[in-house]
Amino acid sequence: MRILILLIATTAHAALMPLPAKVVAGQGSLAIDSDFRAATTFKDTRLEAAIARFHKRLALETGLPLNPARTLLTIDCREPGPAYPALNEDESYRLDITSQSAHLRSLTVTGALRGLETFLQLVMRESGNYHVAAIHIEDHPRYPWRGLMLDVSRHWMPVEVVERNLDAMAAVKLNVFHWHLSDDQGVRVESQRFPRLQELASDGNFYTQAQIRQVIDYARDRGIRVIPEFDMPGHASALLTAYPELASAPGPYHIERKWGIFQPTMDPTSPGVYAFLESFLDEMTALFPDPYFHIGGDEVEPTQWNNSAAIQSFARVNHIANLHAYFNERVQKILKKHGKTLVGWDEILNPGLESSAVIQSWRGADSLSAAAAKGYRGILSFGFYLDHLKPASYHYAFDPGNALGGEACMWTEYVNGETVDSRIWPRMAAIAERFWSPRDITSVASMYERLEPVSRQLTWTGVVHRTNLRPLLDRLAPDDSLRVLADASESTGIEIRRDARKYTSLVPLNRFVDAVPPESDFIRSLDQPSLRATFTAWTASKVTVPELIPLSKNLAEVGALGLETLNYLESGRSAPEVWRAQRLAALDAIDKPIAEVNLAAIRIVRQLLQSPVLSHSKEARSIR
Amino acid sequence: MRILILLIATTAHAALMPLPAKVVAGQGSLAIDSDFRAATTFKDTRLEAAIARFHKRLALETGLPLNPARTLLTIDCREPGPAYPALNEDESYRLDITSQSAHLRSLTVTGALRGLETFLQLVMRESGNYHVAAIHIEDHPRYPWRGLMLDVSRHWMPVEVVERNLDAMAAVKLNVFHWHLSDDQGVRVESQRFPRLQELASDGNFYTQAQIRQVIDYARDRGIRVIPEFDMPGHASALLTAYPELASAPGPYHIERKWGIFQPTMDPTSPGVYAFLESFLDEMTALFPDPYFHIGGDEVEPTQWNNSAAIQSFARVNHIANLHAYFNERVQKILKKHGKTLVGWDEILNPGLESSAVIQSWRGADSLSAAAAKGYRGILSFGFYLDHLKPASYHYAFDPGNALGGEACMWTEYVNGETVDSRIWPRMAAIAERFWSPRDITSVASMYERLEPVSRQLTWTGVVHRTNLRPLLDRLAPDDSLRVLADASESTGIEIRRDARKYTSLVPLNRFVDAVPPESDFIRSLDQPSLRATFTAWTASKVTVPELIPLSKNLAEVGALGLETLNYLESGRSAPEVWRAQRLAALDAIDKPIAEVNLAAIRIVRQLLQSPVLSHSKEARSIR
Repeated sequence: MRILILLIATTAHAALMPLPAKVVAGQGSLAIDSDFRAATTFKDTRLEAAIARFHKRLALETGLPLNPARTLLTIDCREPGPAYPALNEDESYRLDITSQSAHLRSLTVTGALRGLETFLQLVMRESGNYHVAAIHIEDHPRYPWRGLMLDVSRHWMPVEVVERNLDAMAAVKLNVFHWHLSDDQGVRVESQRFPRLQELASDGNFYTQAQIRQVIDYARDRGIRVIPEFDMPGHASALLTAYPELASAPGPYHIERKWGIFQPTMDPTSPGVYAFLESFLDEMTALFPDPYFHIGGDEVEPTQWNNSAAIQSFARVNHIANLHAYFNERVQKILKKHGKTLVGWDEILNPGLESSAVIQSWRGADSLSAAAAKGYRGILSFGFYLDHLKPASYHYAFDPGNALGGEACMWTEYVNGETVDSRIWPRMAAIAERFWSPRDITSVASMYERLEPVSRQLTWTGVVHRTNLRPLLDRLAPDDSLRVLADASESTGIEIRRDARKYTSLVPLNRFVDAVPPESDFIRSLDQPSLRATFTAWTASKVTVPELIPLSKNLAEVGALGLETLNYLESGRSAPEVWRAQRLAALDAIDKPIAEVNLAAIRIVRQLLQSPVLSHSKEARSIR
Repeated sequence: MRILILLIATTAHAALMPLPAKVVAGQGSLAIDSDFRAATTFKDTRLEAAIARFHKRLALETGLPLNPARTLLTIDCREPGPAYPALNEDESYRLDITSQSAHLRSLTVTGALRGLETFLQLVMRESGNYHVAAIHIEDHPRYPWRGLMLDVSRHWMPVEVVERNLDAMAAVKLNVFHWHLSDDQGVRVESQRFPRLQELASDGNFYTQAQIRQVIDYARDRGIRVIPEFDMPGHASALLTAYPELASAPGPYHIERKWGIFQPTMDPTSPGVYAFLESFLDEMTALFPDPYFHIGGDEVEPTQWNNSAAIQSFARVNHIANLHAYFNERVQKILKKHGKTLVGWDEILNPGLESSAVIQSWRGADSLSAAAAKGYRGILSFGFYLDHLKPASYHYAFDPGNALGGEACMWTEYVNGETVDSRIWPRMAAIAERFWSPRDITSVASMYERLEPVSRQLTWTGVVHRTNLRPLLDRLAPDDSLRVLADASESTGIEIRRDARKYTSLVPLNRFVDAVPPESDFIRSLDQPSLRATFTAWTASKVTVPELIPLSKNLAEVGALGLETLNYLESGRSAPEVWRAQRLAALDAIDKPIAEVNLAAIRIVRQLLQSPVLSHSKEARSIR
């Protein structure tokens, strides 16, 4: 069954991701022509809107001048499902495609939404014509909570960036958008009760309440819940800039421009803080319909609390062993009054927290196990930090285990609205498979085989992870002169960049490192017959951008080593150990970030050097 | 002076196009930082909106997180100018940039709009920082009518396609958008008086009147006039589908799916036709504020008139020598009543036409001279037909002479909303220079030197001429496997495509020919040091798309010939004539379109073969 899917993916350039729970191949295929139509007799505005989007996407994906007239995909649906998407709602569907017609069946509209995305992924091009192979699919998610967290505080993300990413999320069946709306660098929501938040704590970059509602509706239409996060009591520099009287030490405060963990923290002993939270959360819980509400709670810096005699005295007098736990308990009570379940990062796991709370773990599976042992539900984010810019295979190896599900996290210290898509996609699709597909779907080779076509297809949802490379390089140098270097390069993530230079939120993200993707598709898909031409191009690498000259010189060296190795291998003789060791050492010597960029090219030549028995046959088309 | 501009273009990756009337370089340069602001004390909503767009574009163009705070560009303006852009309005401006500040002066807001675009073109990147070189510019257009005609009938163009092209038009100082709204394949405007037009003659693809007004406002904000064209009495199949009683022969008629010249023609002898036109033009002249109104009038197919005894008899009885002239006279009277000046194609030039009419010439300068001799004003379009997909240098060689100006024409038989941008841009920018800059600006080398950076910069206006190549190729094959071939290829235009296969408006435009540009930037910018690597890559060219396999084989052959030639040349010996003749013959043999695509690669190798004395020095960086 799995092998079958692989075959489909490989031979016909279509691919499913996440893989469905059950797939049985049929005979023949259903042609997709200009008059292809999907239709349903079930009256539901959300489903009708979804079908309209489906036709539009199908037209984009194929380039067919679509004029839907002949119903070839029938959708049967039995329930509208909840008005707003809910945790644990039924998302299952069945899809039957024969050479005559296609039939999508689901209990709920959300299930139909998932099935429509599967259908779009099945569309294949062959000699200029489009079709879907006959198939029987029965599908449902492994986890009910499959999310992406987006930090819009460190760098501002306009509504259109959020919306196109919601479309891409829906395409890979994600169902939770976790909106990290406040942090030291900004509070991004309009508050009618506390307007100084947007006036003084946002640099003018905030969502109006109308925009928030628009995004929530947009997400709902795609079967995606929206969980807001207001980080407290720490990560609050921006909030305290607007309302310094809520801090644990006298202000004034300022919107933080640097990255890191900072001292400004709400005063957990102040009645004013809880009065503020009563009112602010009253407003915000009404704005966001989801019954889950995220209060952050990570990285609470204790300096202000430790230095305050009043706070320490309050703790002593009231026998409060843990001020953070005390704060969370009070916040949890406020949320409960509004019918909301508290969600927070690992650090909120303290005695006194009601067991209804959900723990989102950035620290790891152990932390999650500890929470589970105490009866809390958990969400795994450890292993799914997109801002580390690790390869898809890295993230693919983590498993949420017994958690409610998982969330990938897109922290944005080194990412802005212009670059974020290529930092999320296509790697997020592999993580989405981890969250949706059966646990035993673990083949990295199969994942990458399908990730490539899925990445291409995601373009038609509107995300610009592939299309914005060229304009971003265009800014830097003329004539596509950076393309060869860009193809062979990979951007580094936060772990390298935070030490690379003095970054602040005012430093522009408009360099080569910001343009190139975290993982080179070009290198991954290099095949044996292309090696010589590619190495030759590398040896000619030459750029004019000053900070990239050393990187380009290294690429030329990698190309020369590659050609030398190729010549050796093609001579048919096995390589002397000392020759190989010297070349591997030469590669190691240049295998370090320059201008915060790694040369993915090195991997290929290293593999060649390490494989003296490299097959020259045509079967060995792919080198990973 | 001109040499100076070239220097700026070449050394710093910024470039002006169209070149201003007068340029004097200054000393030093003005830094552009995040706090850069343009401001004016002149109160005008159009100017304020333009400044807001200017800041946005500057942020996009540079990647700077713009937070305008320090006024470094001051704009002085004396008059708002007409509420709606007018022919012959003052568009002049002066721009003075020193190392301390910049000053833009104009009489009218429209002049300021032109100057802001010039400023954006001057922004240069150097080692990651941005600046504009000190400069003094005095500028005004050579012609008052500088247009682009877009055919939205053959293929539908959604509002967003029109709007992004208006932004790009403004960037190169064009001021007329000629909207070809009706033809055999569709009438694209909502009529409240004749709703069957949109109901029966548009396939649902039409602009509502609200959308028309939106586009007119959008254009006006950018200093662009909107001239509607309703083609009559011919090219009227769609219109007559809705109202067959207006035709010169009994219907029924149908929306035409094929390309060409068709028989359905309005009856010039029918009172009903003039009653219809009275009412329809009353509605449409109110919708479009421009005092010029285009009635088409081209390619009137005479069959229906010749075959109708009633029409022939009417002509005899009323001594009408030329029915088309008679029709035009009557239409001109109707338009005149509404204060509109008639514009039409060459064919309307007949006795009886009032001399206020403007003749748009698709036939050539002779036709325009004939019109001028009779006192008519003219617009040159001959030489500026974008749908022929000729190189920019071809169009650049035509000159409107004594006409009012010129218009490039984008006919869309083989172009849709997805591909149109790369069919217009960047070549349109070279034509815009012909329409704006002094007559003696004619250096093709200088034009191409500047066209490359201008093309890159145009991306930030929203046009997708560079960014949509990748998704369109992505549809066809995986892994960027078509890129090498795409770089070396050029799409053919209408002259080849109309004979290549049975095209209709229902045939999808989703093939390789639709993706690749008409003119290969890659080939034009190939430099000497890159030749070997490039030829090597060509020899390895291999694709899986069936119709492209012969093209790819040819590219491999061109690569092999290139390498052979390069080896010969590098040996230092001069090539024997017979050897050269054989290779040139081999190139000639494959220099023909395959899958409607030409191999631009052939040009390079042919030039190498024809230049045995090719310099190998580093100065010879560019081969054209």
